[in-house]
Amino acid sequence: MRHFEYFNKTDVQKIHAATLYVLEKVGVDFGYEPALKVLAKGGCKVEGERVFFLPKLVEAFVAKAPGQFTLYARNPEKNVVIGCENTAFAPCYGPAFVTDLDRGRRSSTLEDFNNFAKLSHASRNIDINGGILVEPNDVPMDKRAAEMLYGVMRYSDKPFMGSAIGKAGAQKTIAMSAIMLGVGEERLADKPPSITLQTARTPLGYDDRMLGAMMEYAKAGMAQVVSSLAIAGATAPVTMEGTLVIQNAEVLAGIVLTQMLREGAPVVFGGSSSAAAMRYGTLSAGAPEMVVNTAATAQMARFYSIPSRGGGALTDAKIPDAQAGMESMMSQMMASMAGVHFVLHSAGILEGYMTSSYEKFIMDDDICGMCKRIRRGETVNIEKLAVDLIEEVGPGGEYLTQMHTFQNFRKEFYAPVLEERGTYDAWETNGSLTLAQQANAKWKEILANFEAPDLPADVDRDLRKYIDQI
Amino acid sequence: MRHFEYFNKTDVQKIHAATLYVLEKVGVDFGYEPALKVLAKGGCKVEGERVFFLPKLVEAFVAKAPGQFTLYARNPEKNVVIGCENTAFAPCYGPAFVTDLDRGRRSSTLEDFNNFAKLSHASRNIDINGGILVEPNDVPMDKRAAEMLYGVMRYSDKPFMGSAIGKAGAQKTIAMSAIMLGVGEERLADKPPSITLQTARTPLGYDDRMLGAMMEYAKAGMAQVVSSLAIAGATAPVTMEGTLVIQNAEVLAGIVLTQMLREGAPVVFGGSSSAAAMRYGTLSAGAPEMVVNTAATAQMARFYSIPSRGGGALTDAKIPDAQAGMESMMSQMMASMAGVHFVLHSAGILEGYMTSSYEKFIMDDDICGMCKRIRRGETVNIEKLAVDLIEEVGPGGEYLTQMHTFQNFRKEFYAPVLEERGTYDAWETNGSLTLAQQANAKWKEILANFEAPDLPADVDRDLRKYIDQI
Repeated sequence: MRHFEYFNKTDVQKIHAATLYVLEKVGVDFGYEPALKVLAKGGCKVEGERVFFLPKLVEAFVAKAPGQFTLYARNPEKNVVIGCENTAFAPCYGPAFVTDLDRGRRSSTLEDFNNFAKLSHASRNIDINGGILVEPNDVPMDKRAAEMLYGVMRYSDKPFMGSAIGKAGAQKTIAMSAIMLGVGEERLADKPPSITLQTARTPLGYDDRMLGAMMEYAKAGMAQVVSSLAIAGATAPVTMEGTLVIQNAEVLAGIVLTQMLREGAPVVFGGSSSAAAMRYGTLSAGAPEMVVNTAATAQMARFYSIPSRGGGALTDAKIPDAQAGMESMMSQMMASMAGVHFVLHSAGILEGYMTSSYEKFIMDDDICGMCKRIRRGETVNIEKLAVDLIEEVGPGGEYLTQMHTFQNFRKEFYAPVLEERGTYDAWETNGSLTLAQQANAKWKEILANFEAPDLPADVDRDLRKYIDQI
Repeated sequence: MRHFEYFNKTDVQKIHAATLYVLEKVGVDFGYEPALKVLAKGGCKVEGERVFFLPKLVEAFVAKAPGQFTLYARNPEKNVVIGCENTAFAPCYGPAFVTDLDRGRRSSTLEDFNNFAKLSHASRNIDINGGILVEPNDVPMDKRAAEMLYGVMRYSDKPFMGSAIGKAGAQKTIAMSAIMLGVGEERLADKPPSITLQTARTPLGYDDRMLGAMMEYAKAGMAQVVSSLAIAGATAPVTMEGTLVIQNAEVLAGIVLTQMLREGAPVVFGGSSSAAAMRYGTLSAGAPEMVVNTAATAQMARFYSIPSRGGGALTDAKIPDAQAGMESMMSQMMASMAGVHFVLHSAGILEGYMTSSYEKFIMDDDICGMCKRIRRGETVNIEKLAVDLIEEVGPGGEYLTQMHTFQNFRKEFYAPVLEERGTYDAWETNGSLTLAQQANAKWKEILANFEAPDLPADVDRDLRKYIDQI
């Protein structure tokens, strides 16, 4: 299946050329002394915190980044390819609030975090677990990153998201990954188990926290997403094209730094820019302009032969209602069809990036599943064209009782997590439930039946010991 | 912007070849004597009701259908191109029930029909009005088609959908169109104001009602959609490929008939096939397999150089909840991105095809608008890349107060019908409304402020006179 191409090749070239001009003449601020030293040594012009990149230098270092890589799960059956034809889904990331239909919106806790780690583990469609599923506000600041990493290691054997909270966050991720896998830290680069999100300080800057983490991960050969969230009309020009130039310049500047630190360090080209909601002067995560940016991000990343990040079940809705459904699907459909490789916020996110919803997590899981079904494509061959069967059944016949139907429907049809496809009467008899209400029952059922994957007792003890000494 | 291509060229050829085999060896039943006569005279082999088509005959007649055409509105500013780069949206079609948040689900009436005609007229995103927006169950059977046509002529000056209820329905549509436009019936072919939906009796058949209407419209040179709704696993093979062969054979057989009756009669290649909900043995309108079929339909129609019909804001949901939002958007995104030209059921439809919802109409209007915004594409040029502005603002600056932002945001950003993009606190202060509740207020506001377009008094009188004599 071909990818959806939003821009033509000449347009992509124009955006690239404008980006190179900005990197050379306008520059990018790096608010972290160690980064400035590396960039200067690598050949950039540095004036204070501002760094200027020659076009040839940008192209040379960007070319060193790998075209695809694999995240190695504790359970090898759950390894995930980042790149190529694969679209990998990761759950909600960053909210300080959590909500469900019973208890409403509230400050999130470690228990909520662990619940979302369990839901992500149980999902057929979520490929990568962890990150800041929700902020564990009841855990002291210095322990939060470690407790989140522990939760995801305890309740899941999928690849996971690392901590982006400065050099220290990266070091904790690296140390705990090494404990979990029972290998030396220097061996993690061979089979990176995690990927971490780094986001620029738009427009055209990076702060010390992000750079500290980014440098540590790059040196260790651990995977990371170098991402930009420009807001058209607020932190970037109001045009999609101008916003793309800002986004592109930020991402390329970050990728150059990673490749100067370690040639071939695995990176993802990330874009989650969107439009401002002009009436409020804030970000709109559910705008169609966000979707345009997702398509463009996939294309720019392909142009640079680097895996892409974009999309997500994003919405401006406050509750898991129709707005949440339509905006999330809009964004996820484009990510899938444009060939995005890594999709953060694939399940549970509400209100831009403010809240994680238990019910929306379940609903979004189906969105991921439906998008995967569509992306799967078909194999047109004699058996699937089924002309013999059509000839046998003939005009006016039926296929419901054919052996062919029973033998193949499970392979052909997506089986939804929440299936509401019966009659109106049946729906009424079952209590006239909204999809959110059906999701409410489902997440409780999943948590009630949850079985954690095995984690050896000594690994568990060593992880807890590591956290205790922080 | 390129279209999304689901299958590769070889796959399309294989589906075409399998279709030709079915048309030649299996045949299609035509349950209407006048159609059998035309097909026999045109060169088909006819045995009883069964008609067999030689490949060369199929290809020769299909090639006569136009690659695009225009629907001419009473108001020329609202003419609609069917074909090319345009995606035209038409509202809900066929439901016998109507629902809104105040009164719930009930049998629909002429008043409901006229309300949906008004909402369709007022919409910025709906291009074509009318059809069976809802069934006017309170009108005697013999007057229904005419009253619906009258309602749409009275409350809208957009192109409209004609009646598909047999030869008589077509004749009423033709007669009333001629009265409305003040031209002779024989002149309607020059500027067809309407388009009508014809659907095969799957698998591989057409009934007398559809054929009566289809022949009448073809002879008059009026536009029609020749469509198939095969249910994979029920009325067609369980594979998407086998279902496509059934769909393709039915549509091509219908199109051959139209072109035998009048060379160049405007037709649309229609596909709305989907998967069976196996648990219930019924159609699933919200399945991802439906979306696969939409993409394939657009491709097959392009292969034949005929405009396509597919997609729609389709869902299995019973109410305008998150399921309605996500499934409707999934279908509409694919229709837009695959380059479908005519999208029926673009607003208001629920429960497969059973119910029209006032609230969902408003929500779907935004789905159409967002899809149009995405499909619009961008024009990458110096002004839009805005490098000068980026240089001026520099790293760490802001764009919210820039003249450039104020001058361009209305052109750049989609302005939603229902805008819920503010903070959680603002949403709570405004009553914590779901999108459906916000839509409830909006449709009432639109109907309360509705102003019908001018319809000359003598035309109005002649239309009523025509209806009285039915």
